[in-house]
Amino acid sequence: MKPKLSVIKIGGNVVDNTPTLHQFLHNLAHYDDPVVLIHGGGKLATQLADKLGIKQTMVEGRRITDEATLDVVTMVYAGLINKKITSKLHSMGRTAVGLSGADGNLIRASKRQHPEIDFGYVGDVQEVNATFLHGIINQNLTPVLCAITHDYQGQLLNTNADTIAQEVAVALSSTYEVSLVYIFEKSGVLMDIQDENSVIAELTNDSYLHYKMEGIIHTGMVPKLDNAFKAIDTGVDNVKIGKAEDINDILHGKKGTKIL
Amino acid sequence: MKPKLSVIKIGGNVVDNTPTLHQFLHNLAHYDDPVVLIHGGGKLATQLADKLGIKQTMVEGRRITDEATLDVVTMVYAGLINKKITSKLHSMGRTAVGLSGADGNLIRASKRQHPEIDFGYVGDVQEVNATFLHGIINQNLTPVLCAITHDYQGQLLNTNADTIAQEVAVALSSTYEVSLVYIFEKSGVLMDIQDENSVIAELTNDSYLHYKMEGIIHTGMVPKLDNAFKAIDTGVDNVKIGKAEDINDILHGKKGTKIL
Repeated sequence: MKPKLSVIKIGGNVVDNTPTLHQFLHNLAHYDDPVVLIHGGGKLATQLADKLGIKQTMVEGRRITDEATLDVVTMVYAGLINKKITSKLHSMGRTAVGLSGADGNLIRASKRQHPEIDFGYVGDVQEVNATFLHGIINQNLTPVLCAITHDYQGQLLNTNADTIAQEVAVALSSTYEVSLVYIFEKSGVLMDIQDENSVIAELTNDSYLHYKMEGIIHTGMVPKLDNAFKAIDTGVDNVKIGKAEDINDILHGKKGTKIL
Repeated sequence: MKPKLSVIKIGGNVVDNTPTLHQFLHNLAHYDDPVVLIHGGGKLATQLADKLGIKQTMVEGRRITDEATLDVVTMVYAGLINKKITSKLHSMGRTAVGLSGADGNLIRASKRQHPEIDFGYVGDVQEVNATFLHGIINQNLTPVLCAITHDYQGQLLNTNADTIAQEVAVALSSTYEVSLVYIFEKSGVLMDIQDENSVIAELTNDSYLHYKMEGIIHTGMVPKLDNAFKAIDTGVDNVKIGKAEDINDILHGKKGTKIL
């Protein structure tokens, strides 16, 4: 039987909220199984860009990344947020290693080509170096990954953290029984978006199709869940979705939505 | 016999000059023996602090590091410079891992205590995690270290890159025959500061004392060389000093000053 491992992605809503982040990391530090943590960027990059007078443009939810913006996200994601999280985990008893996709050629990406939109230095994941990650995990270290990758030609690239989490989970699934955990602002996939108590505890492909047809699951949740099912189709054992405060219960399958 | 390893520190004058840095990394990428690279920060941190309106104060050559300044140096050193160098080394054929002292608890430091001056979040090195570094080097990876450390209590600290290089060199000297290489703006230790052709090829403790007494070696070179001899006294095989353009010849003992 493969050993268990969780690939956990935290979004900007956790990164931006110091008490929430602190409590989340504290819970994570005391979880026994190996973990790979992936963090998004939150508002800090936008705030820094604003202060520096670098105009930010979002298209289809992606940040158009010119050279100045790439410097900003590299500083904020790979520098400030990554090292703060890593340092905090140590103080809570979990030895961590903060990494970008450039480190140890961990994540090779290619610059996005789009027929109409020039996204700039935005990268699409090509390959995850699972061997290097195994080496880190086997030393009982927790990799903390930011969403900066490289193209192996000397160019850093700004990459979607959800996608990195998914690709890392798939790459590790030949060796581990991988749970892919998305931490976001809701308690899980909800029957009623207004009611945090309406969490759908378990979703299968069939029930997902049913909820989509009924219009219960719609808009932003659809690409997230499509990706979740894609991860399962490519080797990930299960996907869990929920909020930071519930991380312990989510990891133990007691809260959030579990996708099989 | 121990295997050879070079611990190389590059200063701001290399980091700030893109063509020089590029050529230096290119030469380093094609050097056969294992290397640990440590980089300083250069002018970028000061420039970013200026743009953000964060006043910078230098005392005894150290940057007074308040919380806002710590964020700036963490972003610039651990983020921007570290990941750019790491990514460039890959493209030149040398697989590198960019790390801060917080990663894998690589360098634990303590906040500087000074009877009169509050340096803020400036750290003095307490311990280098040689085991973790060995693990990286044994995978044929080149560690690229920035001068950000942590106190293991969740606090990042701004630390002198020269000192980090020295402490890393000493920590690795039980396993490797370590050359500690300081790359700076001159061709080596000079007999005449105005004459780049007056490099002193070799310095022993005796000849150093002699040159100091004669007033040939003075001011800024004295603490640098005192540290070099201290490194040798504590296990480092030799220290080399010279400029970036000569890195190949320095590594092979053909240029620069060699301290034994």
